[in-house]
Amino acid sequence: MQKPLLVIGNKNYSSWSLRAWLMLKHAKVEFDELRIPLFVPGAKQKLLEISPAGMVPVYCEGELLVWDTLAIGEYLYETHHALWPADRAARARARSVSAEMHSGFVPLRKAMPMNIRALGRKVTSSAELEANIARIKTIWSELRKQYAAAGPWLFGQYSIADAMFAPVVFRFLTYGVSEHGAVDDYLLTVSRDPLIQPWLDASALEQEVIAASEVGRENKQ
Amino acid sequence: MQKPLLVIGNKNYSSWSLRAWLMLKHAKVEFDELRIPLFVPGAKQKLLEISPAGMVPVYCEGELLVWDTLAIGEYLYETHHALWPADRAARARARSVSAEMHSGFVPLRKAMPMNIRALGRKVTSSAELEANIARIKTIWSELRKQYAAAGPWLFGQYSIADAMFAPVVFRFLTYGVSEHGAVDDYLLTVSRDPLIQPWLDASALEQEVIAASEVGRENKQ
Repeated sequence: MQKPLLVIGNKNYSSWSLRAWLMLKHAKVEFDELRIPLFVPGAKQKLLEISPAGMVPVYCEGELLVWDTLAIGEYLYETHHALWPADRAARARARSVSAEMHSGFVPLRKAMPMNIRALGRKVTSSAELEANIARIKTIWSELRKQYAAAGPWLFGQYSIADAMFAPVVFRFLTYGVSEHGAVDDYLLTVSRDPLIQPWLDASALEQEVIAASEVGRENKQ
Repeated sequence: MQKPLLVIGNKNYSSWSLRAWLMLKHAKVEFDELRIPLFVPGAKQKLLEISPAGMVPVYCEGELLVWDTLAIGEYLYETHHALWPADRAARARARSVSAEMHSGFVPLRKAMPMNIRALGRKVTSSAELEANIARIKTIWSELRKQYAAAGPWLFGQYSIADAMFAPVVFRFLTYGVSEHGAVDDYLLTVSRDPLIQPWLDASALEQEVIAASEVGRENKQ
């Protein structure tokens, strides 16, 4: 049988691609990848030929197309019985924080684009950006406190919530956001996840540069 | 047993509140409402006392808080076995279009804020806005064509996808977006839904005016 296919963008820059890719890896799905470098002539057309929404990621399994990250996560939950907490109340909470990330944190996403291989950058702060960062630190810290005994992830075991926040981890590392304790511990948990290493390696090797995502000044210590 | 509580914003303006409220109504949940008028002094503080994300809607059932519209939908799907199509592939597609609405269509959401009681408005067009409108028309038309025999909603029977697009219906009515055929039929299906009528009546009676949502010039015919 043909493997499912995940269509993704640049590994260094495409935060939504990373989220879906991590969900598939953690659900132990064997899949092929099709990487379409974004923001170059013809990229949008190529994507539109695959998916009507014209965005990455797209999950293709036979005739089935699933073209949004959260929808891919729910599909994997149904088919692989993985990726959401087993307890219903915890699952509702995991879906709440995941959806909060899915539709929100716009100031953070604009000011701090994912740029995995860049380190030591600083961006200009703003009240909205600081509020986003504070809220994310609170989410992580509260969950890690509650689920510490169950494992190193937000809800103990790996869940879609961890995939949803993974790009934020790399934003924090790129732009120097940290906080001693649960926040820093979680940055390490995500960035040292053995399953993510091939993605990080590939990000470092990509040659394309997306100018709009190259923001921040070098952080001279 | 105490009824669940749905915390919402202004009925005339709060598109996310409308979505969650419709899901509850169509899932036949008996619930109480707490309306917190938005963008007035103290509103954010009131919300933060209820929910850590500080946003509407919030669904409260005993100790359980669910604070995002999609997460509320998935919770209702689990507890009431309603609101997503029964077929797995259709469900994946319904989740894809719902998530596309959840995280996207930003130009449309900015240029055409929901303002249910306003009619006959025109806003300045843009390529991004037109692309959003075209994509939504395509989603509705293709789904209505495919599921016409199964019922009047996007996937035949009512689903979360219909709740997700309901505010877009009222945007189209306010700012004069229409298209003969499936699009106009769907505008009528949603706006004449018997379950939505109390919300529309309440919108008309609300006294608060949110200036930022009062956009567009009067459309002189």
